[in-house]
Amino acid sequence: MFEVVAVDGQARFGRLQTRHGSIETPVFMPCGTYGTVKAVTPEALKEVGTQILLGNTFHLMLRPKDTLIADLGGLHQFMQWDKPILTDSGGFQAFSLKSIRKIEEDGITFRSPINGDRIFFSPEKAMTVQENLGSDIAMVLDECTPYPASRDEAAFSMQRSMRWARRSKNGYGGVGMLFGIVQGGMYLDLRKESIGILEDSEFPGYAIGGLSVGESKEELVRVLEGIMPHMPQGRPRYLMGVGTPMDIVKGILLGVDMFDCVLPTRNARNGYLYTREGLVKIRNAKHRQDNSPLDADCSCYCCSKFSRAYLHHLDKCGEILGSMLMTIHNLYYYHDLVHQLRRAIEKGRVSALVKTILEGWKSSDESI
Amino acid sequence: MFEVVAVDGQARFGRLQTRHGSIETPVFMPCGTYGTVKAVTPEALKEVGTQILLGNTFHLMLRPKDTLIADLGGLHQFMQWDKPILTDSGGFQAFSLKSIRKIEEDGITFRSPINGDRIFFSPEKAMTVQENLGSDIAMVLDECTPYPASRDEAAFSMQRSMRWARRSKNGYGGVGMLFGIVQGGMYLDLRKESIGILEDSEFPGYAIGGLSVGESKEELVRVLEGIMPHMPQGRPRYLMGVGTPMDIVKGILLGVDMFDCVLPTRNARNGYLYTREGLVKIRNAKHRQDNSPLDADCSCYCCSKFSRAYLHHLDKCGEILGSMLMTIHNLYYYHDLVHQLRRAIEKGRVSALVKTILEGWKSSDESI
Repeated sequence: MFEVVAVDGQARFGRLQTRHGSIETPVFMPCGTYGTVKAVTPEALKEVGTQILLGNTFHLMLRPKDTLIADLGGLHQFMQWDKPILTDSGGFQAFSLKSIRKIEEDGITFRSPINGDRIFFSPEKAMTVQENLGSDIAMVLDECTPYPASRDEAAFSMQRSMRWARRSKNGYGGVGMLFGIVQGGMYLDLRKESIGILEDSEFPGYAIGGLSVGESKEELVRVLEGIMPHMPQGRPRYLMGVGTPMDIVKGILLGVDMFDCVLPTRNARNGYLYTREGLVKIRNAKHRQDNSPLDADCSCYCCSKFSRAYLHHLDKCGEILGSMLMTIHNLYYYHDLVHQLRRAIEKGRVSALVKTILEGWKSSDESI
Repeated sequence: MFEVVAVDGQARFGRLQTRHGSIETPVFMPCGTYGTVKAVTPEALKEVGTQILLGNTFHLMLRPKDTLIADLGGLHQFMQWDKPILTDSGGFQAFSLKSIRKIEEDGITFRSPINGDRIFFSPEKAMTVQENLGSDIAMVLDECTPYPASRDEAAFSMQRSMRWARRSKNGYGGVGMLFGIVQGGMYLDLRKESIGILEDSEFPGYAIGGLSVGESKEELVRVLEGIMPHMPQGRPRYLMGVGTPMDIVKGILLGVDMFDCVLPTRNARNGYLYTREGLVKIRNAKHRQDNSPLDADCSCYCCSKFSRAYLHHLDKCGEILGSMLMTIHNLYYYHDLVHQLRRAIEKGRVSALVKTILEGWKSSDESI
């Protein structure tokens, strides 16, 4: 199901087979929260190079409800996306709720932010919902260890996540793959322990959870460096909710195979755009009269047709077309970045490419 | 430049040649207020059958400014639309301003709603702005007669509009055509007088202004019926700011060649959708689980791919993709309606087609 085709240092180029076709890794997965990657059609998604997208279990469970999606033929049919879909477990959102929630060994109880309904969410429930959605890759329900957390807190939380992972595995009856999630906070020994426990269940893939939760970039890299050598070699490794282009480059160099993040799409809607020269804030007055494309070396629809001045204008007027074009560009940028890294890994030239990429970002106004 | 190819009753099928190609009439023109038809790319616009679109002089003059657009190569280049563009004169918006404005023979003075700048707008200025935009079809500046208006008020206002039409004609140095605008409120004798005065200037096309301003549907039809037989035969006739599908059918039957309206695009963003069975309010709970397309007989991208349930869900979540898909559908519907009427006029079968269309709308929840 997963094959590592080439390695270059710790970086890997691989292929993952799913029910909806094969994907090349490393891969970036755009977020399709409510059954749509915001501001793009499925056709445009394919054009920018999306191989697989992420659906949010928590959101879809509440609206329009997973049972409705199941009745209508599953999430692929509902949103007209015939390539692979990975769904998160919904745990992260449930834990992030500011309204009343209660976490117990059995599961988590909360009030729906949509209509106030009392909802009980458990590993078993998370599996049922993901089955209803028809995910190609489902995730076990894990407890999100808060940051910062003491060693005892992180250990207790990790152990509960491991028990929930086992319950998820036992409860999952879906047609896709089920990935385990490594927890343990910022403590490397707990992380290693977590990996060992998950390996006993022989998951077809392993995610790294509980990162990008407020820790510094240095902390993120330190933990990742500590974890990666211990992750199972023959299985895909998915770094959840990460990150910036810089994070992704670093992750790939450390052997991560899969990423997801709302950054490219959310930033696009706010006029923050990624280019080979770094981050461009299109709202900046200097773009007002600039007839050149956002990124002259970019082949996306936005850059091949429209000027910075036009994007600046659309952004200023709050025009939907601005969100559409800028989302297309940012996703194209992310996919192209990862695509180039895949090709470089294949040819054993990843260091040289990364050097070039970092050189380009040097002139960026803000960190990328 | 304009050729009437076929007539059926008073309805006409024609061809209008512009600098950016030929268009078939009757034609519906979507509104591209700020240099974008909201929520659609230029490519999608072509796919739904848009032959020509309308740019708003007033809006573009304020943002990003017509001089900037001129510097960047004109509106076609700016928004990447290589088919014809008609621009309104900006008068309607200037007159609609609620903030302080002063109307005099020389022109209208107002404060910019964007930044408070004091702006003087005159027939000559309206021409300069439209020249800067590079319109294929420009409009004279007219005074919008308020509704209701006494005969004296309407007469005074019409006479001023006629003087402004002459000044517009003298001032216009653009590369496109300049259309005159018939005014006169709801008074047929004033309307006829206005037509006569405009004809002396030999405009290449004539618009009917000051309708759809608050009068009843019956009033609109009465005035239109009264005006149309007196409009120059060999020139395109443009009914400004009209209207619903029903208005357009009626207008075409009375010999109107061109229409523009924000209804299909604005309604799309609010989930009001046009179909062969009439108006569909997608927010209605009955669509929640409906796996059928919005309109089974429609060939647009939205109807060929997505279900009512999906559109209902997108609308409920306020997703941009909802606006995108529903705009595509509504524009396709308008263009297809007018396209079918063109073909019917060509074949002398317009009455039969209109009967079928009205039959379909009978079951509509709301008037269409």
